[in-house]
Amino acid sequence: MAIKKHAVNPEDDLGFGTQAISQRVINRDGSINVKRIGMPLLSTTNAYNRLITMKWPKFWFIVLGGYSLANLFFASVYYAIGVEHLNGTEGKDSFHRFLDALFFSAQTLSTVGYGHISPSGIPTNSVAALESMTGLISFAVATGLLYGRFSRPSARIAYSSNILVAPYQLNNGRGLMFRMANERRNTLVDVKVELIFSYNEQTPDGKPARRFYSLPLERSNVSILTLSWTVVHPLDEKSPLFNATLEDLKNSRANFSVLVQAFDDTFSQTVHSRTSYDFDQVVWGARFTPAFFPDETGRVNLHLGKISDHTPVELSANA
Amino acid sequence: MAIKKHAVNPEDDLGFGTQAISQRVINRDGSINVKRIGMPLLSTTNAYNRLITMKWPKFWFIVLGGYSLANLFFASVYYAIGVEHLNGTEGKDSFHRFLDALFFSAQTLSTVGYGHISPSGIPTNSVAALESMTGLISFAVATGLLYGRFSRPSARIAYSSNILVAPYQLNNGRGLMFRMANERRNTLVDVKVELIFSYNEQTPDGKPARRFYSLPLERSNVSILTLSWTVVHPLDEKSPLFNATLEDLKNSRANFSVLVQAFDDTFSQTVHSRTSYDFDQVVWGARFTPAFFPDETGRVNLHLGKISDHTPVELSANA
Amino acid sequence: MAIKKHAVNPEDDLGFGTQAISQRVINRDGSINVKRIGMPLLSTTNAYNRLITMKWPKFWFIVLGGYSLANLFFASVYYAIGVEHLNGTEGKDSFHRFLDALFFSAQTLSTVGYGHISPSGIPTNSVAALESMTGLISFAVATGLLYGRFSRPSARIAYSSNILVAPYQLNNGRGLMFRMANERRNTLVDVKVELIFSYNEQTPDGKPARRFYSLPLERSNVSILTLSWTVVHPLDEKSPLFNATLEDLKNSRANFSVLVQAFDDTFSQTVHSRTSYDFDQVVWGARFTPAFFPDETGRVNLHLGKISDHTPVELSANA
Amino acid sequence: MAIKKHAVNPEDDLGFGTQAISQRVINRDGSINVKRIGMPLLSTTNAYNRLITMKWPKFWFIVLGGYSLANLFFASVYYAIGVEHLNGTEGKDSFHRFLDALFFSAQTLSTVGYGHISPSGIPTNSVAALESMTGLISFAVATGLLYGRFSRPSARIAYSSNILVAPYQLNNGRGLMFRMANERRNTLVDVKVELIFSYNEQTPDGKPARRFYSLPLERSNVSILTLSWTVVHPLDEKSPLFNATLEDLKNSRANFSVLVQAFDDTFSQTVHSRTSYDFDQVVWGARFTPAFFPDETGRVNLHLGKISDHTPVELSANA
Repeated sequence: MAIKKHAVNPEDDLGFGTQAISQRVINRDGSINVKRIGMPLLSTTNAYNRLITMKWPKFWFIVLGGYSLANLFFASVYYAIGVEHLNGTEGKDSFHRFLDALFFSAQTLSTVGYGHISPSGIPTNSVAALESMTGLISFAVATGLLYGRFSRPSARIAYSSNILVAPYQLNNGRGLMFRMANERRNTLVDVKVELIFSYNEQTPDGKPARRFYSLPLERSNVSILTLSWTVVHPLDEKSPLFNATLEDLKNSRANFSVLVQAFDDTFSQTVHSRTSYDFDQVVWGARFTPAFFPDETGRVNLHLGKISDHTPVELSANA
Repeated sequence: MAIKKHAVNPEDDLGFGTQAISQRVINRDGSINVKRIGMPLLSTTNAYNRLITMKWPKFWFIVLGGYSLANLFFASVYYAIGVEHLNGTEGKDSFHRFLDALFFSAQTLSTVGYGHISPSGIPTNSVAALESMTGLISFAVATGLLYGRFSRPSARIAYSSNILVAPYQLNNGRGLMFRMANERRNTLVDVKVELIFSYNEQTPDGKPARRFYSLPLERSNVSILTLSWTVVHPLDEKSPLFNATLEDLKNSRANFSVLVQAFDDTFSQTVHSRTSYDFDQVVWGARFTPAFFPDETGRVNLHLGKISDHTPVELSANA
Repeated sequence: MAIKKHAVNPEDDLGFGTQAISQRVINRDGSINVKRIGMPLLSTTNAYNRLITMKWPKFWFIVLGGYSLANLFFASVYYAIGVEHLNGTEGKDSFHRFLDALFFSAQTLSTVGYGHISPSGIPTNSVAALESMTGLISFAVATGLLYGRFSRPSARIAYSSNILVAPYQLNNGRGLMFRMANERRNTLVDVKVELIFSYNEQTPDGKPARRFYSLPLERSNVSILTLSWTVVHPLDEKSPLFNATLEDLKNSRANFSVLVQAFDDTFSQTVHSRTSYDFDQVVWGARFTPAFFPDETGRVNLHLGKISDHTPVELSANA
Repeated sequence: MAIKKHAVNPEDDLGFGTQAISQRVINRDGSINVKRIGMPLLSTTNAYNRLITMKWPKFWFIVLGGYSLANLFFASVYYAIGVEHLNGTEGKDSFHRFLDALFFSAQTLSTVGYGHISPSGIPTNSVAALESMTGLISFAVATGLLYGRFSRPSARIAYSSNILVAPYQLNNGRGLMFRMANERRNTLVDVKVELIFSYNEQTPDGKPARRFYSLPLERSNVSILTLSWTVVHPLDEKSPLFNATLEDLKNSRANFSVLVQAFDDTFSQTVHSRTSYDFDQVVWGARFTPAFFPDETGRVNLHLGKISDHTPVELSANA
């Protein structure tokens, strides 16, 4: 085992815990791989959180479903009170009378209120007043949710699919490298990156313990992320991975978590992005090929599809 | 009295004042235990603040109450002008005429405007124009309030019910410890914690003065709060509590205030959370039991309900 | 002249410029006393800025005025096309016909659309379609403006009316002191204050130049602003004001600008507040009297109205 | 070539890449001169980004165009179902029947719903219910977009058109200087500036490489930007440009990029602004003339139109 052991140091747990685990804490897509049990069942904040972060099709399904259910509910109430209290309806049978109630309900909920069907009597009028109020409030909620979804801060960063052990600088040096670029139209400034290496270490008592190291980087921040950025951890004597082999990484269930923080210049928000590379995503002996080129006018073109492209290279023996 | 005395140092008041008090400044739920007198009575910002932070039932009560009151007000105006200016009404007595005015008002305020009742004459038409305008503006205000409530930054952090004096590291060390975890679905990154100890000290002139110390922590920040985090103040020679006993804490009305700052990754907001432990929440000689376990699939499950669980342990005599 | 001269040092201008001036740069209420000429006349951002920051009465006047003007405009268009295209109207003379057009316009703009008056013919129908669209968009703008006004970050900090030269610590020390407290219900954490002293200095060539110094403070930040905070600049040997007299301050047109930054815990926003004290607000030889007291239940009450209260004291001669 | 060569140092690339280029990376207006290929075609965030940042005329064109297209679409559906299901219509020919459908559609989409035309039959009623729902949702989206446009953080900073080589301090010193001022009504505090110099360097193998230096500034931040601010890079021995001539700058395709960060006090947002000066915007031997003056009342007036004004001066030979 060539991963350098360090003293047990609580400063190193970085908030991930020190229990030996056989899973990633951070998934490839940046989400957290921990299940929380005992969260409050009814929480407006959690509900809002879900509605804001779910995929669009699911969101629209919920909006349309809610509109339909509310309509059916109020239609049933009008029907129960009696459609004879809806002036202008002329349904011949139960089905058509229910439809009349349904269409009146839709016209009330959306506040379009044509008026060719209109409520009469205290109960129907009261329900109609309540329904139009409900419509307005629901619509206010929808406005808030839509704005919340649109304006939610989010960086979409394209990461290379692999993390490479590549030649680095002179003297047969090596570096651990991955590449990233901004996939969005917004400008990211003040970009900071942290690379956390974790693995299972055999402690003297035979029980494995999970260790975490924040790996030093050649450069951990850039002023502005215009092109692709190759993040490099130099595999020199200071690295816990100096003499490690691919086999070592596999045996210790090594994982490299990437935490990126940036400032989104368009929306004035600090955004975060995460990913992680498991030991089986490490390519030993490869180099990234360029991802940007000048076009015929001399303007630089950045090809996001080429961000993962690499070519094998021979690594010299470690000095 | 074994709490180490320090020179009177104004840098230590941390904004809490140095007057001897027999109360917490920060309540268990994180609110501030100070009453302010002389605040401006009419302040939009204070009103907005209240409407945003009050509980949901109270909020809905105010919204529905406001809607009802506005309706009653405008209905009274239409009734005073005369319901004969509301075409399509056929109320036989005062009560039914007022109801007609009320339902017309509701249809106008919500802008549903069926039209089976419609205004005639200059006064009624003018009031109706004003009412629909009022409806729209109220609804705009409601939209803003709802969005403000939804998007309000807030961390909900579960704190252990007690703060423990527990064995810590080798050499019979002790630490003062509490535990915390994120109760929400959002991800908290860059979490910082400050632990402030305060107590009443007997000054030479016999008048007690309140002292405040920011206690040094084993680790005061984590990159990401995925699991539970046990915050530890080592009770070593550098601690003002090195030789203190539970009796000392009680006599000096000791309090431990916790100030947490974190970055909510989902909404790109810095959030704060606070709590405080009074001397009677200190457990002398106990250790937290684990709150997270791998489930059958190997995935880590964090049990929020177990965050306060602890078991008694014997403390060795201080070195 | 006893204000200590420093070398001309461009690092000291702090963004205020070094030209001798006979005015405050920062007004008592925190606004900036500079007129900018040549700003773009038509700028949505500047218009939004004005609408968000103006007083409420002016804001409502603009909203209601805009609604009325839009109504009058569209009414004139309907009238010009001919009210005979508005079915359901029965105005006998020009005035009543215009009123019919006006009420129809109001019902369209607010989208209440009772329908007892309805458009016919291509021109009137087209204008009505445009008007309802205008109504919706205006209402969307109003919603945005209202939310913008509500949620605008703002600290309201009560500053003492005067800045005092008061006894400070042992050894006959003196300090320059002012006092501040939070006037709002929201909690301010992480409060930082900067005190900038400026005065006109006679340069060797006889032309006065404005000098600026950031005065060192006994304590320049507090973790949480729960009570009142007395900010102190010690008048010791390191102070440029060590031997200065009230006369010196007056002759050099001295000014003390206060820049406060805090984090509003309720809305997760960094807020700023500013004020400034001119030489005629300096009280030589006075001490602030307490502004908070425990009430009968032992709870601390902070009296915002007493924030400026001070009592004269005799200053010992400077050491 | 008098630009001082430095060792090839990856810490110097500042996120711009080190490939020799014949173009600016940052345009005069602050936008980024890089084309990204392979961005996701359908992305709500990118669409929102575009709608928020486009010019107002284009935005209104899209809003009105969308409203018209939706109207035409629903009108076609009603027409296809048959206008005989729209009660109250009396179109004599196809064109007028389509117009009836169109006006009914407009009244439904805007929820004005006069009701003189009203739907009958299941298909028409269903489409109308869907249309009014669509209207409400579209309007919610429009509200969010408008608020997003209004509240988008943005600094508008006026930069001088040229960057000057001017006399600076005593001893025949020189400085590279540009000038900036706030063009907006909002107050900018805590303003930080970074000046990045880039040029093509001939490497030993004859291939030019782009080098980047963050130039040290006389003063890189101000507390509050009330007047104009002249940013100065002293051309002393520590500067890579110490002995450089205008010819050197031209031959190496020199560029000076300006990155400004500030805190907008009105909206509590961190804002960024960028510009860049190419070698042909450098004026060798000139000095800025004042841009602010006291008016007759003694109040300082800042003339934004004079921010670029400079006058030629003779430069002494470098020491």
